[in-house]
Amino acid sequence: MLDSLDKYLDEYVVGDRFVTRSRTVTETDLVIFAGLSGDYNPLHTDAVFAESTQFGQRIAHGTLVLALVTGPTMALSGSGKQNLALAGIDGIRFLKPVFIGDTIHVEGEIVGIIPKDENRGLLTRREDIINQRGEKVATYTKTAFVRRKKAE
Amino acid sequence: MLDSLDKYLDEYVVGDRFVTRSRTVTETDLVIFAGLSGDYNPLHTDAVFAESTQFGQRIAHGTLVLALVTGPTMALSGSGKQNLALAGIDGIRFLKPVFIGDTIHVEGEIVGIIPKDENRGLLTRREDIINQRGEKVATYTKTAFVRRKKAE
Amino acid sequence: MLDSLDKYLDEYVVGDRFVTRSRTVTETDLVIFAGLSGDYNPLHTDAVFAESTQFGQRIAHGTLVLALVTGPTMALSGSGKQNLALAGIDGIRFLKPVFIGDTIHVEGEIVGIIPKDENRGLLTRREDIINQRGEKVATYTKTAFVRRKKAE
Amino acid sequence: MLDSLDKYLDEYVVGDRFVTRSRTVTETDLVIFAGLSGDYNPLHTDAVFAESTQFGQRIAHGTLVLALVTGPTMALSGSGKQNLALAGIDGIRFLKPVFIGDTIHVEGEIVGIIPKDENRGLLTRREDIINQRGEKVATYTKTAFVRRKKAE
Amino acid sequence: MLDSLDKYLDEYVVGDRFVTRSRTVTETDLVIFAGLSGDYNPLHTDAVFAESTQFGQRIAHGTLVLALVTGPTMALSGSGKQNLALAGIDGIRFLKPVFIGDTIHVEGEIVGIIPKDENRGLLTRREDIINQRGEKVATYTKTAFVRRKKAE
Amino acid sequence: MLDSLDKYLDEYVVGDRFVTRSRTVTETDLVIFAGLSGDYNPLHTDAVFAESTQFGQRIAHGTLVLALVTGPTMALSGSGKQNLALAGIDGIRFLKPVFIGDTIHVEGEIVGIIPKDENRGLLTRREDIINQRGEKVATYTKTAFVRRKKAE
Repeated sequence: MLDSLDKYLDEYVVGDRFVTRSRTVTETDLVIFAGLSGDYNPLHTDAVFAESTQFGQRIAHGTLVLALVTGPTMALSGSGKQNLALAGIDGIRFLKPVFIGDTIHVEGEIVGIIPKDENRGLLTRREDIINQRGEKVATYTKTAFVRRKKAE
Repeated sequence: MLDSLDKYLDEYVVGDRFVTRSRTVTETDLVIFAGLSGDYNPLHTDAVFAESTQFGQRIAHGTLVLALVTGPTMALSGSGKQNLALAGIDGIRFLKPVFIGDTIHVEGEIVGIIPKDENRGLLTRREDIINQRGEKVATYTKTAFVRRKKAE
Repeated sequence: MLDSLDKYLDEYVVGDRFVTRSRTVTETDLVIFAGLSGDYNPLHTDAVFAESTQFGQRIAHGTLVLALVTGPTMALSGSGKQNLALAGIDGIRFLKPVFIGDTIHVEGEIVGIIPKDENRGLLTRREDIINQRGEKVATYTKTAFVRRKKAE
Repeated sequence: MLDSLDKYLDEYVVGDRFVTRSRTVTETDLVIFAGLSGDYNPLHTDAVFAESTQFGQRIAHGTLVLALVTGPTMALSGSGKQNLALAGIDGIRFLKPVFIGDTIHVEGEIVGIIPKDENRGLLTRREDIINQRGEKVATYTKTAFVRRKKAE
Repeated sequence: MLDSLDKYLDEYVVGDRFVTRSRTVTETDLVIFAGLSGDYNPLHTDAVFAESTQFGQRIAHGTLVLALVTGPTMALSGSGKQNLALAGIDGIRFLKPVFIGDTIHVEGEIVGIIPKDENRGLLTRREDIINQRGEKVATYTKTAFVRRKKAE
Repeated sequence: MLDSLDKYLDEYVVGDRFVTRSRTVTETDLVIFAGLSGDYNPLHTDAVFAESTQFGQRIAHGTLVLALVTGPTMALSGSGKQNLALAGIDGIRFLKPVFIGDTIHVEGEIVGIIPKDENRGLLTRREDIINQRGEKVATYTKTAFVRRKKAE
């Protein structure tokens, strides 16, 4: 089990796994995210309408759920200075709704390591977002440029 | 050119295109998003460090860029009540950095329409995020459950 | 019933009516507005004091209530580019308290159309703010400069 | 010159005047207010578009300007417990645009004192919002229920 | 009992006491402070973890508690222009947890007055933070530079 | 040099030192903190007034500066679960003003380790806040309850 995501590219091995700490999703998160994104879809902001839907209550925006777990993931990244930039995200699937009061964390696995040149390469992680009932609420793979260990 | 994204699934045609209004990315957006997500990577929050990188300055978080254009897209969605829930996002690529002060909008196209049952189906849109210099800074496809027109 | 508030001045008719989507008022809205405005009156921020008043609980700031319905109204305004600037607001009356958890929307009517020159004129809308129990909680008239259709 | 707005109704005299402290309007205020209100009109949030308007730059939302001066006014209100509730606002006129970086304050005058019963009455204040160049940017009258001094 | 903290240094007497208004601590305050400070300790942000601790629920950050009472204290400071700058804080002790929903205020006493030169001096206040059950949750002494009355 | 502050009490040695990552102080931080704390002292919120002071510009609130460095410190604390609760802060001195745009970090040292019982004890750290010019802007000692390694 990886205890840090602040490693040089060459220090990872495909199959390495990690688990982040958890975070509770609050009504405040929905309100701030609606404001930041301008996504005021009534599913997220109108409690009366949300009650009439298949979900029975307001649900968190999909993009908010992705955002909320970057913090717990970053908490494994220490200084974060080996992580150069996000390159892409693939195959995001929102599998179950996330409600106000749910507590979510990430369980991840290294699935790709591609050196690009002497200085950096691409690291791909599959990440599942899991709630307090052990249900997988979303899944995706995230690819980032990561620094390589300088040869001496 | 579509003037609304608040249609029933059956009213879209593959190849329909749309352009959203624009939004300026502010330092405030970076600060609020760092707080909301807990992603305090120094690329986004440490101006001295950011100056020493290939970008020369702080850049917006990738997930923030995705979030910031949902508002302009929602502005085309009126009541938003035909859009039932986000199903997934695929092939997100961050092609160029987004800096504080950049002004971005979305240019999109309907690329998939798949009825699931009498009541709803999946609508897939390819969306490019474009900055004020006409550069494509990110691209992805977004799939959502959309209500079908009830037969009478 | 108007389905858009993104028209040229000349496209409105006195008596046209519109209804916006709804929005739930959250504790977060009160906290953010207290911070933004600096209005920390204990009616809005001290639950113990508020319990001792005629209202029995914290109430939303009057100006917050006005602010919270501009989003639902803007959702009818699409690009918003026909609306040049707010000129004034008259006769605001706060008729009933708005509590945390209430869900409000606007029911409005065009009550004045005054061309000023070839390019723009004043549009006046009477707007009532209605809660989930159908009670009118506030009323006012809002006048804005709106673009005129260019003659060709 | 009044040094406090935390008085009982009977302690005010028509013609009493007051001046509040000042506050600088920041880009952050515009961003937070756009999020809170959902009013993403491009005049307030799209720097490129705003440059093409008569104003030449983004301007503060009218309702934001009203909100931003309640704090400086409240700073004169001490505990605020004599002010029971806002009853209405009349004749709001937005006379000049407020830009990011402007510093505004209120100059006000008591213009109406109407006892309603033994316990409370209506206090009306005319308030002008003034910027750092001494220009009046907005004006309105605000009426609030204020506690009366209990007879002993 | 002091009714204002906007006095010149020479107008205070050691032993003068003051009581501020109260403020309810909300979940929103914890979320915004976690974001602002980047302190996402699970005691403050993970409801499931917090339930397993000695506290049984999430608690407010110590520094947040200090921040939340500066507003009620400032409400006694009017224009605030006699208070030149904070010099230091000593002996901060967090005596009891502060929970979401608690309502807190400050009871303070002037404990030190040290003129430094003709223009300013140091004012030291002992402040206790008290909750709605009358329990002292924190205590500290705060020292600030305060303007002296100019001799005429 | 400590590379983590997520240790059991018994793993620290007096004299251990640590350096956190840095963070740029933004205007947004001042605005959000003014709102959260209600501390609208013109030194922090009125650019015109601030220009007339000894500082020549707005300065960050002292308590904000303390808050802003908890994130970088927490980034060294991983899961944070060994840190049970903050007990107190002593000898806070604000030595130099912190301006908008400054970039600050913490340089710290373990100065006290006091076991209280089998399960926990008090860890005291002296922390200096340093800006991008290498100047010490604040200093204090912080004492927290930390978990002890369970004997086996």
